[in-house]
Amino acid sequence: MQQAAKSVKLPGSFNMYRGGQLPEVELVYETWGRLAPDKDNVVLLFTGLSPSAHAASSPQDPSPGWWEYMIGAGKPLDTDRFYIICVNSLGSCFGSTGPASINPCTGRRYALSFPELSIEDIAAAARLALNELGIEHLHTVMGPSLGGMTALAFAVDYPDTIDNLVLISSAANAAPSAIAIRSLQREVIRSDADWVGGDYEVSRGPKEGMRLARKIGLMSYRSAEEWRERFGRERVAPGEVVPPFGVEFQIEAYLDANARKFIGDFDANCYLYLSRSMDWFELAEHAESLEDALARIKARHILVIGVDTDFLFPIYQQREMADTLQDLGRQVEFVAMPSLQGHDAFLSDQARFAHAVQQFLSVDLIDGKVTSISNRSVSR
Amino acid sequence: MQQAAKSVKLPGSFNMYRGGQLPEVELVYETWGRLAPDKDNVVLLFTGLSPSAHAASSPQDPSPGWWEYMIGAGKPLDTDRFYIICVNSLGSCFGSTGPASINPCTGRRYALSFPELSIEDIAAAARLALNELGIEHLHTVMGPSLGGMTALAFAVDYPDTIDNLVLISSAANAAPSAIAIRSLQREVIRSDADWVGGDYEVSRGPKEGMRLARKIGLMSYRSAEEWRERFGRERVAPGEVVPPFGVEFQIEAYLDANARKFIGDFDANCYLYLSRSMDWFELAEHAESLEDALARIKARHILVIGVDTDFLFPIYQQREMADTLQDLGRQVEFVAMPSLQGHDAFLSDQARFAHAVQQFLSVDLIDGKVTSISNRSVSR
Repeated sequence: MQQAAKSVKLPGSFNMYRGGQLPEVELVYETWGRLAPDKDNVVLLFTGLSPSAHAASSPQDPSPGWWEYMIGAGKPLDTDRFYIICVNSLGSCFGSTGPASINPCTGRRYALSFPELSIEDIAAAARLALNELGIEHLHTVMGPSLGGMTALAFAVDYPDTIDNLVLISSAANAAPSAIAIRSLQREVIRSDADWVGGDYEVSRGPKEGMRLARKIGLMSYRSAEEWRERFGRERVAPGEVVPPFGVEFQIEAYLDANARKFIGDFDANCYLYLSRSMDWFELAEHAESLEDALARIKARHILVIGVDTDFLFPIYQQREMADTLQDLGRQVEFVAMPSLQGHDAFLSDQARFAHAVQQFLSVDLIDGKVTSISNRSVSR
Repeated sequence: MQQAAKSVKLPGSFNMYRGGQLPEVELVYETWGRLAPDKDNVVLLFTGLSPSAHAASSPQDPSPGWWEYMIGAGKPLDTDRFYIICVNSLGSCFGSTGPASINPCTGRRYALSFPELSIEDIAAAARLALNELGIEHLHTVMGPSLGGMTALAFAVDYPDTIDNLVLISSAANAAPSAIAIRSLQREVIRSDADWVGGDYEVSRGPKEGMRLARKIGLMSYRSAEEWRERFGRERVAPGEVVPPFGVEFQIEAYLDANARKFIGDFDANCYLYLSRSMDWFELAEHAESLEDALARIKARHILVIGVDTDFLFPIYQQREMADTLQDLGRQVEFVAMPSLQGHDAFLSDQARFAHAVQQFLSVDLIDGKVTSISNRSVSR
């Protein structure tokens, strides 16, 4: 566990969106910056599927975080201005309660006895955690990927508390191609004999399945265009080729190195639960229709970012969401990023994403009131 | 083995492109139509990775072939006009010599002792087979996918014998994203304990690995757009859902059914060898550069078809190839298909593909000489 990580225990038991109950829930989070006296500077940040709450370094934990370029003094999420809270999702394995946690009723790990996890549960647990911390009003709620789905659910379910909403490479539901990829990742993990129906010992999980699932994921996280530019048909050094059928092209070595780095970190059951929650997510279920659900959002100012080369959350999803919100009269900025890095661009294409978030968040500082931004050009 | 399948044994031993030798080679093929007295109506058809030589039904074998809509009386490959020969690739497992065949020197299956297989070997074996059949001159050489790579290698290595060349959803080399996908498919197969380092018994091969590899393949064979239109977020009937983590969305059921259908047919080692041959293929190796290699092609008339939504052989590959051939003074028609079915469109988008091939092959019949086509519009 990171030294900077804090923890909050939710009061009482926790009822899950799809049924079932957790007897107790603990959420781990990290913070940067200072809470203003009138508590009006809170940015709530949800993460993608796999990161921890360690989004950036801090004096308590100087190791770089997963969004290091975005958070800090003078950065888009400016610690001189904002109090940023990043939550480790309910269901994850970096301190928050999830399938890898001990069930206090049995003294054993939940594993598959953990109730079905939804995006809405991640949002609800975060809302309860904020209540415990005495934070009601949120300057901004934001998240990329799964974190964007969570921010969206949060904005629809708790609309009165949010001023600004930032949805990055996310969607109101999962495309069938994304379901296909995630379903296959889960199947590869479950096919590993070391998964043992979910009852593996923590130190002896389905490493091979996780490694292969990660590689499948990388196909959908990056883009063919990026790989063409970055690796082409370059080979690894002849001495590194391991016949037969071993790594031979640099693209293969890249996937291998990335996948091996991943498997140590993530609990397989937590991965399965979080992955499935994305497939299930359907914002339209919150009302009569998707439009009705989006109409519940009260955030005054909304930034929607999509990436041209995103295979997992295709850009039509962000465009449609932005269009609907605009038709509903919300002040929406939609940015179509020409990044080559696909779904992962929010991690890699730092200059573009920093600029977009900085611009968006600087508006009510510069102009005093947010209404002025409706005149700004919207890139489509 | 299909009743319509014929077989030819190549004379002597066969030297492989990357080194090594096969003591004997047998190739299986099927034919449709009649060989003209002056043998000027032969169409040579290479297949994609997984099909057999049974491209279409015939009186001898009335079961539908993999390109049924393309071959027959009055169809684009008109059996009243052409003598069509479809070859089961060297290295495949539907009758032609491959890793699943018995090595006559040992009396045991080759398995991984089969020498490294290249696209060029598939082309060379077919050329030798035609020699045995007394066929020198080819009206048309064609193929989709791996078959297009093979047709290309054939046209460069045996340029004097070909009038027309048809390259469908193919390329002069593999894109890194395609290498990534195939490498992962091979890894999933090899990770299956039932692969046993290639030494499985034929009836007990790595079925689970083959099933998962097929699903990964389907991600690259079809397109996200098609799935969005065809399946959306539709669920299977509630009674068919098998918790936890079983099939729940129709897209998952589709992948599952397709993958299960596939595994009975294909030998895993043959799959590994053919898959790797595509990654290795680099037409530029045949000369000083890709342009020099393409300059060796003497076919008078070339049709290049690409599909907008092809993820495995992205359309820029076909466009670049067509442009280069045109710059070299060849008569090239490039067709950019707007099909939704991705790489597999040549199997599914029957009307468009039939039309394009029919148009192309009708030219020298209608006009008597091929030069007239240079005035026809080229769709880009």
